[in-house]
Amino acid sequence: MTTPQNTLVLDAINGLRTEKIPVWLMRQAGRYQPEYRALREKVSFLELCHSPTLCSEVAVRSVEQLGVDAAILFADILLILEPMGIGFHFGENDGPKIPVPVRTAQDVERVCVADVARLDFVMDAVRTTSRDLKGSVPLLGFSGAPFTLASYMIEGAGSKDYQHTKTLMWREPQAFSQLLARITESLIAYLNAQIESGVHAVQVFDSWVGALGESDYREHVLPHMKRLFQAVKAPTIHFGTGNPALYTAMHEAGATMLGIDHRASLESIRQQSGATRMQGNLDPIVLFAGEEVIQREAARVIAEARALEGYIFNLGHGCMPGMKPELVKHLVDVVHQ
Amino acid sequence: MTTPQNTLVLDAINGLRTEKIPVWLMRQAGRYQPEYRALREKVSFLELCHSPTLCSEVAVRSVEQLGVDAAILFADILLILEPMGIGFHFGENDGPKIPVPVRTAQDVERVCVADVARLDFVMDAVRTTSRDLKGSVPLLGFSGAPFTLASYMIEGAGSKDYQHTKTLMWREPQAFSQLLARITESLIAYLNAQIESGVHAVQVFDSWVGALGESDYREHVLPHMKRLFQAVKAPTIHFGTGNPALYTAMHEAGATMLGIDHRASLESIRQQSGATRMQGNLDPIVLFAGEEVIQREAARVIAEARALEGYIFNLGHGCMPGMKPELVKHLVDVVHQ
Repeated sequence: MTTPQNTLVLDAINGLRTEKIPVWLMRQAGRYQPEYRALREKVSFLELCHSPTLCSEVAVRSVEQLGVDAAILFADILLILEPMGIGFHFGENDGPKIPVPVRTAQDVERVCVADVARLDFVMDAVRTTSRDLKGSVPLLGFSGAPFTLASYMIEGAGSKDYQHTKTLMWREPQAFSQLLARITESLIAYLNAQIESGVHAVQVFDSWVGALGESDYREHVLPHMKRLFQAVKAPTIHFGTGNPALYTAMHEAGATMLGIDHRASLESIRQQSGATRMQGNLDPIVLFAGEEVIQREAARVIAEARALEGYIFNLGHGCMPGMKPELVKHLVDVVHQ
Repeated sequence: MTTPQNTLVLDAINGLRTEKIPVWLMRQAGRYQPEYRALREKVSFLELCHSPTLCSEVAVRSVEQLGVDAAILFADILLILEPMGIGFHFGENDGPKIPVPVRTAQDVERVCVADVARLDFVMDAVRTTSRDLKGSVPLLGFSGAPFTLASYMIEGAGSKDYQHTKTLMWREPQAFSQLLARITESLIAYLNAQIESGVHAVQVFDSWVGALGESDYREHVLPHMKRLFQAVKAPTIHFGTGNPALYTAMHEAGATMLGIDHRASLESIRQQSGATRMQGNLDPIVLFAGEEVIQREAARVIAEARALEGYIFNLGHGCMPGMKPELVKHLVDVVHQ
């Protein structure tokens, strides 16, 4: 891994107050881009994930178009499921489906720790993207977090209330813990393989963790997050959304930087959790509200970030279909000014 | 309004540590009950809301079946829309639809402050339910909160991302404020009419407020909530869900008691917000996980409530279709022991 020319994102993760505020956007490569939609008319989402050349193309394009300070690997958080023995597929426009979900302690027994050699195509995507970036900006790797991945395995699809997940967690806490432990060990191997292949830092997405209350998070999830962040051999960003009451415990999990959604202010999270390195916070819906609102709201977030030791500008969640590419680009320009 | 025999709920709202923990459950009358489902095969939801006799029947039945310490008026938060000039209807199984939503400053002009005489059928339901309860337990009135009702008016239906609501709020803050002010004045008249008709206290449901970040809540919503709670002439419970980072500001709004969801612990909310009177907190999904989990999780919430001056046991959200009535009843018994 070589040091990129633009080190703003890495400096911020490492706790430096950067002169210019670094920015990248979750899902900066995605459906809001006409080029991405055109590509997806030719290849399915999983075909795209399996093509290192195409993965690099979409990742590098978003960096060039937006002028952001980091590229993020193009992949999907569910790719780890197959080497763990859990098959899945994407339906037409209705998200992932796991035909045989994990619902009982017995089901957990058949989940194995991933042999990440089976994800070599992801490592190829890392190497190809890394090469195509030509040392310009850092490349971020990523994975889902144990709870979010466990929820997919247990629910078998997206969920509104996580009934099966919570039921297993409360009724069979040991089996639930065993499942999270196996996911955690798989993710450690997966993220370290990404790092060996050339990513400079990694983000762990706990997209569904907001369904949990504070005490459940501390009891059933936090120990696994601590293990994960202890074992990953590069700087880490720990992103969670949906429940700001978890950020204090998430900060204790020990990632290098906390990635937060739009629900709480940077300042109140800093005061409550003691975290001093953060990423995120702009409500993504701001991007639908026009230039003036974008400028005002971005300025508000940036003003609140002044008390932090390391800050990376980002949305509180990913870019969404329907956003205008020129407004996404405008946001990046506004942050850089 | 006469004092009921069972004053536990009113004592707790008024800040007394009660010997027995009072309990009622949001949506304690609803689809989880076979009797309710049978009734709804005969009458539509709005027909039910317009029949004082049937409203009383379902409200009183849940009190008798569960042994809870309060009845809640049977009504819908959207009933206030029609006297404000906003038509709506319920589709088959897919929630409310507002055919002509409020999207612009001009649209806001046509929204009027409700003449609550047009909600006399609700007041009849209050009087009938009151009479049928025979002075046993208090009757709670309720309304939606200004933001939640505004969201319905603006989106025209349920929403995942509140794009139209937030866009109006950020782009036309004065029009948005005018809309919330008109809703607020309507609600003050509506809640005070319920109180004059015999409810002992009222709950204000801000079911969708969790979509907002802290600073947006403080700027665009909090002033209206303060006005509301100043003007309502009975004890108030202020319920919000989806974003525990708002509870500190919600406490400042000045309701008598704070109603909270399952996301944060009673203890952390007390420490952060200074609130000492709270209702709620049990994750409703616990009711799907069997007796043992119900007992353990209820005990955990109750243990955390010990530091409060007034506490009413409740779920963090409403009872859900598919819950077993005998387990709902078991929860109430567990709390009372």
